[in-house]
Parts: sequence; structure tokens; C-alpha cells
Amino acid sequence: MRALRLPGWKSEPELIEVDEPTPGPGQVVVKIGGAGACHSDLHLMHDFEPGAVPWNPPFTLGHENAGWVHALGAGVTGLEVGQPVAVYGPWGCGTCARCRVGVDPYCENTAAAPAPGGGGGLGADGGMADYQLVPDARHLVPLPDGLDPVRAAPLTDAGLTPYHAIRRSWPKLVPGSTAVVIGVGGLGHVGIQILKATTAARVVAVDTRDAALRLAEECGADLALTSGAGTADEIRRFTGGRGADVILDFVGADATLALGVAAARTVGDLTIIGIGGGTLPVGFFSVPYELSIQTTYWGSRPELVEVLDLGARGLVRPKETTYPLEEAVTAYRQMRDGTLDGRAVIVP
Amino acid sequence: MRALRLPGWKSEPELIEVDEPTPGPGQVVVKIGGAGACHSDLHLMHDFEPGAVPWNPPFTLGHENAGWVHALGAGVTGLEVGQPVAVYGPWGCGTCARCRVGVDPYCENTAAAPAPGGGGGLGADGGMADYQLVPDARHLVPLPDGLDPVRAAPLTDAGLTPYHAIRRSWPKLVPGSTAVVIGVGGLGHVGIQILKATTAARVVAVDTRDAALRLAEECGADLALTSGAGTADEIRRFTGGRGADVILDFVGADATLALGVAAARTVGDLTIIGIGGGTLPVGFFSVPYELSIQTTYWGSRPELVEVLDLGARGLVRPKETTYPLEEAVTAYRQMRDGTLDGRAVIVP
Amino acid sequence: MRALRLPGWKSEPELIEVDEPTPGPGQVVVKIGGAGACHSDLHLMHDFEPGAVPWNPPFTLGHENAGWVHALGAGVTGLEVGQPVAVYGPWGCGTCARCRVGVDPYCENTAAAPAPGGGGGLGADGGMADYQLVPDARHLVPLPDGLDPVRAAPLTDAGLTPYHAIRRSWPKLVPGSTAVVIGVGGLGHVGIQILKATTAARVVAVDTRDAALRLAEECGADLALTSGAGTADEIRRFTGGRGADVILDFVGADATLALGVAAARTVGDLTIIGIGGGTLPVGFFSVPYELSIQTTYWGSRPELVEVLDLGARGLVRPKETTYPLEEAVTAYRQMRDGTLDGRAVIVP
Amino acid sequence: MRALRLPGWKSEPELIEVDEPTPGPGQVVVKIGGAGACHSDLHLMHDFEPGAVPWNPPFTLGHENAGWVHALGAGVTGLEVGQPVAVYGPWGCGTCARCRVGVDPYCENTAAAPAPGGGGGLGADGGMADYQLVPDARHLVPLPDGLDPVRAAPLTDAGLTPYHAIRRSWPKLVPGSTAVVIGVGGLGHVGIQILKATTAARVVAVDTRDAALRLAEECGADLALTSGAGTADEIRRFTGGRGADVILDFVGADATLALGVAAARTVGDLTIIGIGGGTLPVGFFSVPYELSIQTTYWGSRPELVEVLDLGARGLVRPKETTYPLEEAVTAYRQMRDGTLDGRAVIVP
Repeated sequence: MRALRLPGWKSEPELIEVDEPTPGPGQVVVKIGGAGACHSDLHLMHDFEPGAVPWNPPFTLGHENAGWVHALGAGVTGLEVGQPVAVYGPWGCGTCARCRVGVDPYCENTAAAPAPGGGGGLGADGGMADYQLVPDARHLVPLPDGLDPVRAAPLTDAGLTPYHAIRRSWPKLVPGSTAVVIGVGGLGHVGIQILKATTAARVVAVDTRDAALRLAEECGADLALTSGAGTADEIRRFTGGRGADVILDFVGADATLALGVAAARTVGDLTIIGIGGGTLPVGFFSVPYELSIQTTYWGSRPELVEVLDLGARGLVRPKETTYPLEEAVTAYRQMRDGTLDGRAVIVP
Repeated sequence: MRALRLPGWKSEPELIEVDEPTPGPGQVVVKIGGAGACHSDLHLMHDFEPGAVPWNPPFTLGHENAGWVHALGAGVTGLEVGQPVAVYGPWGCGTCARCRVGVDPYCENTAAAPAPGGGGGLGADGGMADYQLVPDARHLVPLPDGLDPVRAAPLTDAGLTPYHAIRRSWPKLVPGSTAVVIGVGGLGHVGIQILKATTAARVVAVDTRDAALRLAEECGADLALTSGAGTADEIRRFTGGRGADVILDFVGADATLALGVAAARTVGDLTIIGIGGGTLPVGFFSVPYELSIQTTYWGSRPELVEVLDLGARGLVRPKETTYPLEEAVTAYRQMRDGTLDGRAVIVP
Repeated sequence: MRALRLPGWKSEPELIEVDEPTPGPGQVVVKIGGAGACHSDLHLMHDFEPGAVPWNPPFTLGHENAGWVHALGAGVTGLEVGQPVAVYGPWGCGTCARCRVGVDPYCENTAAAPAPGGGGGLGADGGMADYQLVPDARHLVPLPDGLDPVRAAPLTDAGLTPYHAIRRSWPKLVPGSTAVVIGVGGLGHVGIQILKATTAARVVAVDTRDAALRLAEECGADLALTSGAGTADEIRRFTGGRGADVILDFVGADATLALGVAAARTVGDLTIIGIGGGTLPVGFFSVPYELSIQTTYWGSRPELVEVLDLGARGLVRPKETTYPLEEAVTAYRQMRDGTLDGRAVIVP
Repeated sequence: MRALRLPGWKSEPELIEVDEPTPGPGQVVVKIGGAGACHSDLHLMHDFEPGAVPWNPPFTLGHENAGWVHALGAGVTGLEVGQPVAVYGPWGCGTCARCRVGVDPYCENTAAAPAPGGGGGLGADGGMADYQLVPDARHLVPLPDGLDPVRAAPLTDAGLTPYHAIRRSWPKLVPGSTAVVIGVGGLGHVGIQILKATTAARVVAVDTRDAALRLAEECGADLALTSGAGTADEIRRFTGGRGADVILDFVGADATLALGVAAARTVGDLTIIGIGGGTLPVGFFSVPYELSIQTTYWGSRPELVEVLDLGARGLVRPKETTYPLEEAVTAYRQMRDGTLDGRAVIVP
């Protein structure tokens, strides 16, 4: 079968022929229907160095995958060949306190995971291939009616990551509250859709690009602001002086983190999702009282079920463009050049 | 009546004669039975400058107060003269979203509060006097049976402040979890008592002073560590490598904040209660995933009712030494010199 | 001024002239802009007998009120004459554990309340008059921009009651879940709007009347079912066999309670809001595992703020017809005859 | 190997020789160190009839099991032969929404479970044997240091069942609250220990037997009441008239359910754990406002980890008597006759 392989750090991916996988006990092979291309893949190709993560190339790219059950290993129950499924991407050890409740991204025994701290497309073989070996049947979630693998694939990361960040803040997103989305890109625009679908909070979107702000408005933002020196003040005015209850920073740069603190309300949430490399100095007198500041990374398996339901009902719908597997490299090039429209989904 | 007044910033308090207050509509005068002396009072005397806070001397000191209802203003119901009460210390506007549910320390309309952002002993007249004027009857909480004003007074701040910080982390303090108390002083030792009384979490105490560590053990700490280069490693070993679920930093210096992050578990809480002036640099890669970092300030009125219940049953019992009003200045001097044993409670 | 008074149990209300009230300390007089007429008023007129409740006629009717601040008693702060306000209807003692956090309907010291267990229009004088005396300023909530007293009035009960019942079930109303609204009347149709505005749950409406089912669909119900022998099976089919996560019974008759249990999922909520007088036999083997069954009554003050926000933004909009005060009796007659279209709001 | 088999409904168990099991893919064989004997086993022997449950004899008894990993099936990771483990008893399908987060007792696809709606000792072979086949490695929880299989076994049911019922009510068990334990038997006395270890609530125990009340006091009950006509009044007095926040009914008879409602506070929890066959009539006017009434059944896998931690630290310690496997029938006879002291644990 064909597979888009990353041969080493600091190198370009190659589409080559590899053996089709066969499932061991408890494992499943999935015929890929859609594999999303993520900005973080560009980091894998160009920025990572040996030792940055506890896994290494070569491996097949693609950590946003959906398709159909192709072959079942011994002892697998509850799945049928041909059944459409999404692949839950972060693969933990399966037995620690986090994995036990389906929160693999925070696995506490990564040494026992298939790719320590990673998953398919992140150390282990991913979905930019005709087939993917999934090392444990628990990572497969049946697709609900009305959702095909092409639309499901980006939901497993570009949907799940903002969903987790938002869901944990639901108790603060009551009527009368305000959420701010900083950065209306691949994850941010989905975040706006999720906020509007699951809460009655007002949503303020902030970005530097006009096209992103128009997309924010299409997604339902109540206010779209070009980021600048007065942005925090505009948010304070919009919230009657109180500040925003929840800030979701999909950029994570020094400037966006500083904006987040300046715009936040006491007892709010400031959640850092973007890996822009910024740092926020936190002290007793430098942040609003009881503003909770935290990072989040990906999401849980039960949350994936919920986000797929939103996708099946059309309440969450990432913008996407499809490419055949042989044009995957083109898709990444467009992503790098900024000429890609929405999420690229590779369809083998 | 006598009152211990702070005449100006950067000055020593003076015990002088002032007029006894009379209550206006909705107000209550309390005969003071106990008024706690707090380290933050030393900051008021020596460190504050004009403009640091939106209120100014002169005012009577003492923000930890309990006593008996002495006189009721027009329209006050639900209280009787002679009834023992604790005075809830942070006085907000009474009508904003925070005050409406009894969370005055985070009042969002401080301009409409008796002392903007402060309270009795913090801009308005406090309890180091024979009587205190309480500007709204809602600030009084009846004492439960078995708790006298002397023991109740420090619970209103030295009890309430750690109680609030701990209570908000209860969902993470399940059996099998670990809480770390950094700094076993006036608030920290009460924090250990509260953790043991209200959860089944293991408690690790960290301090530089041997006497503090012995006090931690008396209060029920499962492990008491002299802080040093290896402290975070010791905490990780104690928690099977996972880190501590909840860190309560009662110091708030650069070093203790850094220790907190080094010892914390993913999805934990790191709560900054101490005003040690430290700063923690927070970024996507510098803190454990989804560790929530926040300050807390004082506590809510419903929480004061709960902490008084713990006090009445002997489950929480701050160490304290009593002084007559004429020796209040002595108490502060001993506090400054480090020769004070436990909380000083002034008994007029 | 004019007031619609209930002169005694088992009697018709009368519009008479009474003295205009003057506010005592802490009290406020409101000029009424809208006063909703509620089905429960018909029970007051026709069904109640002495001893049924701890208060008695005569009093002015109307427990859903909004208007403008007209006169302030001594000591009232934070309000201005002329300011538009909603009147929070259930008036508790103000000092018990429930009232302290704004949950007056569950007041635990009703003997100390203005009308024990009641409020304005329920023992104390209500809003079907030119002016209403509100015995504590804390019962007034400023109207948000975009909401006038006529539209605000029904939100204080017909909005607040379903809002409270729904809000407490939010943690169970995740994407993929289903809520069932039994009875699409004055409260039920608002309940559907609230469910759609604040959650991504699917909503099933059940009623016996075609017009009610059409209204349910206008309000956003995903499925509208004529209640009958097969209704529980239809709901189970709609939910993939699992049953509905949350059942809101706005009728409360034997048959609707039985339907609720038959349609409910394990670990769900079955909430009884309607006072239809039914009884549900509950035992270990007769209800789904861990289905929580409870009544709810009215809602809290902080919740009223939230529901007014939904109203101001048009996300919740009870159907209503306005009547001048002199036609209030007509409105009640139409309500009794079933010829009233939506909520009647009396505009003095 | 030896196994205590139930040959059919309405029959006595027999200790016979059977083949030692071998594990298939994903399965594990456990060498039994302790197997608790539960009252519900008596119901299996004497009261069940064909059709009562979707599974049938013959099978080996024993659903409270712990021991050591003996043999691993293909594909099992994260466990080692010889490792001490507890067996999580309720075995669901493994893939439904409930099983996905470790809540097997509420499995929504029981047809796909090893014993539909049951588990080992409940349809499938249990632990009253030298070895037990566990059909999925996820059902094994490593024992923490300090807990041996004999003490661990009863914690898997007699510990886990009250733990789940109490844990879900934690938010209501704040300082100042009261919990009532009705029935101080095998589960109830553990419930008291769990309440004292994990909350600061006051605990009231109710039973008809003096010995049970003495046991309640040893376990830490603050008040022990002989149940009778005035019990609800005594509880109301003890709670200052408000009623108890949480009622845990370990009996479940008509009389205990009625007592529960009579003693309960508004917005409390009344949880039915005992299968005494009683029925409670619930209507809008017959129960306190917003008292939540529900059954609970067993507990979740993450909760088992927590209760084992309490056991290892000695905070929860069921009374128990050990018997060799050949005297298991004797243990059940004593249980039936009421001469058993504490939980019987069979040690093969």
C-alpha cells in the first residue's frame, strides 16, 4: 500500500510503497477514508530535532484519521468489518489513571504507550496511507449517522482540541458571560462554532487578518476585533467593564497571552491552546483574582464522541479542502505558503 | 470608646478615644469580643504608600473580628442584641454579580463599597476597638454553639482564606491524591487542618523552619519536608512519580512558585495565596498540561459559615495568643520580631 | 392607586383603589410596567382553602413583575429612581443558608419572611397595581439593555422556573444527549427555547394538543410527539434505545410521571415542575439505575439575571398578549376558558 | 481446581473440581487470594427464578475478588504475573458510553457483555475457586502497597457500593451538613467510615439493633439512633430543624424510605442502595423541594482505585472473618442464621 512517510527529522515526507499491516490481538486495521493535514506536521518536518520528543522517524504522517474497519485482531469485540469509524489520535498506556477514563493525552505511563507521548502520525504510523494499524480497539469510535470519514477526520483534532478547552469552561460560560477566541485559524474557527452550539455565551473573536475576522462572523462571533493596542479595552467595554469570563488563546504568543490577561475577568479561565512559544509572567498582583491559567492538549475519548455528534448534526463543520494521497505534499506546501483554504483532508 | 487607629501610611498605630458609633438604616454595631492581628497589618503600617489602594488612613485596624450584636439600625431583621456573631471582613457593593452570591472579595463595583476594595480594618473602621460599625447586616454571621468570639475571630481570615483556596480544589482532592502546603505559618497550618478535616488527600508540608514542620505534623501532615534543592523530587517520589494534585503556596515567592510547578501533576491546581511578590513564567511547554494556576483572595460569606462550623467542632483550631487592647501594639511588635506564638487575638 | 385584590379564598379578584405604598428602610416602591398573569393565580382564586398555605387574603395579585424604581427607602444604595428593574418574586427571610446565596424559594426560615413561603402576589401585595412595595432592595434586578418591563415580567416566573430546572441538569445535557419536555404550555414552550439556547441537546416535546406541538416546533424542538401509549417507545427509538437523559415534566400528572420514567435513561434526571397532583411510585427495581427524581420550585436571584440576559438578546421570548389593568379579570377568564394566546401581561 | 458452583436456581452451592481456565486474547487468569461472600448470594441461591436476570446457572459464585495475576492472554500489557490485583466485578460490553469511562454497572449494551448485566459470580464464573478467568484485563486494578487480597476483596463491592453512593453526594456534604446512614450492616458500617474519611459532614446512623448502633459509633457516627416513630423528629432536631442533607438507605424498605423523606432537607439527596423491595410515593407536594431521589448500583472502576487507597491507609476497613474454601457453605449458613461476624472472606 501507499504511505506518506517522514524519513527523518528536518526532512520532507515521501509517498512510498510499504507492506499492508495485519492486526495482532486486540488490534484493528482501518481503511483510511480521510486524513487531516495539521500545521503541527510542518513542525515535525522542519523544526523538531532528535530528543525533542521521546519518539523518532521514520513513521507515516497523519494524526487526524477516519475510515472503515478493515481487519480485526484476535479478541476484538464490538466492531464489524466495514463499519465507519474515527480514530482517536492520542494513544496512551491504557492502564494509568488518565487512560482509564479515556484521557490519553495526559497518560502518566507514556513509556508503555505505542509511541511514548505520541500516537498514530506522531511516532507510530498515521493515516496518510491506504490503511492504518490501530494498536488497540478502544481508540476507534463508530461514526454517527450523517457523518462520513472525510468530514469526520479533522474533527478528531481540529474539532476535539477546541472542544476540550471549551467544555472544561462550560460552568463559566453561562448566559451573560463572554468568551474570547484569539486566533481564528484551523482550530479557532471551530472553537467559535462549538461555543455557539453548546453555550449562550457571547463570543468575541480577535485576529490580525480581515479574512479570519469574516470567517469568525460566519461562524457566529458576536464581535470580531482586529487585534491592536486597544483590543483589551474594547473587550472590557463590550463586557460592561468586567472583562471576559473565558479566554481561549489559539496563538500562544507573548502578545496574545498579555492580551488575554488584560481582557480577563476575575474567576475566569485563560486557556493556552496555541503553541506560539510565548510566556506569561504570573504573580499575585499581575493577574485578575482567581483567573485560572492553564494549557490544554488535545481531548478525551468521550469528548470525541460528543464532537462527532455535533459534526453529524452540522453544528460544527470545519472548513476543508480534499486532496488525493498523491497530492498530500502539495497540500502541505500550500499550508506553508498560506494559500490553503481551510483544513486539508487527504483522501486515499 | 478606645480604638487602635492607623493615623497615616508609614506610621505606627495609636490607641485613642473616639466616639462610639451609632447604626444607620440596615447597619449594626458589634461589641468586639476578639480581633485578630494579621501580618498584612504590618504591611499597612510600613509598606503601603498613597495610591497603592483606593482607600486611605486614618481608620481603626482589625479585619478579623467577632463579638456580640450591640445595636441594630432601622430595618434590620434576623438579628438580636446580645447575639454572638462573626464579622465577614470583605465588604463589597452588595449588588454586583459577585456580591449577590456572597463573594465580596471579588466585588465588581468597588466604587460603591464602604471602602473600595477593602473592608473593616482596611480603609473602613475595623475591630481593634470596643465597638465596630458594620455597614450592612448581611456581613454578620451568627456563631454556632461552642464557638466564642475569641476563637471565631481568626477564623474570619486565617481560617477563611485557606478554606476558600482548598474548597475550590475539592474535586481534585480525591482519595489517592496529594496536596502540598508550602509555608506553614498563620494560614498554612490552618490549611493543613482543613485538608485533613474535609478530604482524604495525603498532605505534604514544606517549610524552611523546623518548628513549622513540627507544627505541620501536629496538624496532621503525612509528610513534612525542609525545603531545598531536592524538594520537588521528594514530592514526586512520594506521589509515585505523578506529582501533587494540588499545590497551595502560602508564600508566593519566586522559589516557592517554581517549586510548585516542579512538583505539580497534570490537570492539578497551583494556587497562590501568599503575597510574597514572586513571579512564575507560564508557557505551553513550561508547566504540566492543564495545571490550573490562579491566585485566591479571602473567601465567601457561605464559606465563612462552613469554616465556623469546623471551628465549633474543634476540627479547625488556629494557634492563638490573646492580648488586651492596650497591648495590641506589643502584639504587632512581637509579630514583627518573630516572637509571637500563633495568631494574636486582641480582646478589648 | 388601582390594585387588583384577592379579597378572600374562593373568590374573584376586584380592581379597587388603595393607598400608594411608601418605602420603609431598605425597601423600594416600583412603578409597574408589566405584571404577568399565571395559571397558579387561578388556583389562588378557586382552589385554595384556609390553611393550605401560611398566608391569607386579602392581597394584591401578580407575582411576575417588572417596572421602574419609583421611590427608595432609607439606606438603599445601588439603585436610582427611574431605573428599569425586574422584581424577583420569591421573598425569603434573607439570612438563612438558602437566602444567603439568593435561593429564596427554599428559604429555611419562612416565619421571618414577608409572606411566609410566598412573596409579592402570594400573600404579600403583588404587581397588578400601579405601584408595588418591594420589602428588600435585594429583590430588584436591573433590566439589561434591550428588555422592557412588559417582556421582562413573564421571565421572572415563566422564564425563571424552567430555567432553574434546566440549568441544574446542564452537566447531563451534553452533545449526544436528549431532553424531553412534557407539556408545551406557558412554561414548557419557554423551556424548549432555553434548552436550545444553552445546550446542544436534542429536544423532544410531548403534548396532547396539535397547537402545542406546532409551538414546540417553532421554539426549536427536534421532535414533537402527540402523547399516547407508544410515546415512551418512540423516545427510546429516537435515542438509540438508551432513553432520554433529562425529562422535564411540566404537567406532573400520574400519566406524565409514568411516561417520564418509561422514557428515562440511567443516570438521568426526571424533574417535576408541574403541579398536576400525580404520584410516582419509586423503588429499587421500578426506575432506571441512578435516575434522579426531584421537584423544583421557581429559581434563584442569580439565575434571574441570566434569564433576563437571554430575554434581552431574543434567545428566550415567551409568547404574550398585553391587557390594561382594567381588563385583568378578562385575561384570567380567557385563561380559564383556554382562549388566551400565550402569557397575559397586565400593563397598568 | 476447586470451585464453589451454583448448579441451578433454588439450589445450594457445591464445591467441585473443574478445569483450570486458560486466558484467551486480552484475558487474564487470577489466582484467588480472597473472595467475599455477599448477602446477595443468598438471593441467588434461594430467591431467583428463571427469567429474573438475563443469565443462568451453573456458574462459580463470588463477585468480590482479589488475588494475584496468574496467566496473561495474548496482547495483554501493563500487568505482570504474580502482581496482586483486585477484580472489578461488574463486567459490561466495554464500548458503550458507560463502559468507556469505567462505569460498567450501567452498561448500555449488556447483550455484548460476558454475562449480560452481571459479571464474575453473577452469571460468569466468580472467585470462589482457586483461579478465576477475567475476560478483559481492564477489570484488574493493581493493589496499592499495604493492602493484601484478603482485605481488598470485600472492598470491591461492600466498599465500592457505598463509596459510589457517597462520592456522588460530596458536593452536598460540606461542613455543617448531615448525612444519615439507615442500616448499619455489611455496607452501612463501611459507609460511615467513608463519610468520616472523605468529608466533614456529621453522620447519623439508624438501625433497629443495638449491636449495629455500637458498631456505628466505633466507625465514627456522631449520633446513633434506634429507629422508631420519633426518629425523623430526632434527626430534624439534630439538624436545627432543617433536615439531613444526604440520606443513604442501605435497607430500602417502605418504612426506611418513608423515614428518609421525613428526615430529608430541601435540595438534598435520598439514595436507595438497599434492595429491601420498598416503594416510595413521590409527588410535587409529598417530598421536600428539590430533594433528589435515586438508586445506585455498585460503582465505577476509577472509584475502585480510590476505595482501595482508603483501604490501604486503614481509613476504611470492613469487619471480616476468613474461611477456607471448603467452609464456604458454612459461611453462607452463618450469614443466613445471623451468626456471622462481619464480612465472610473465603481464602482458597
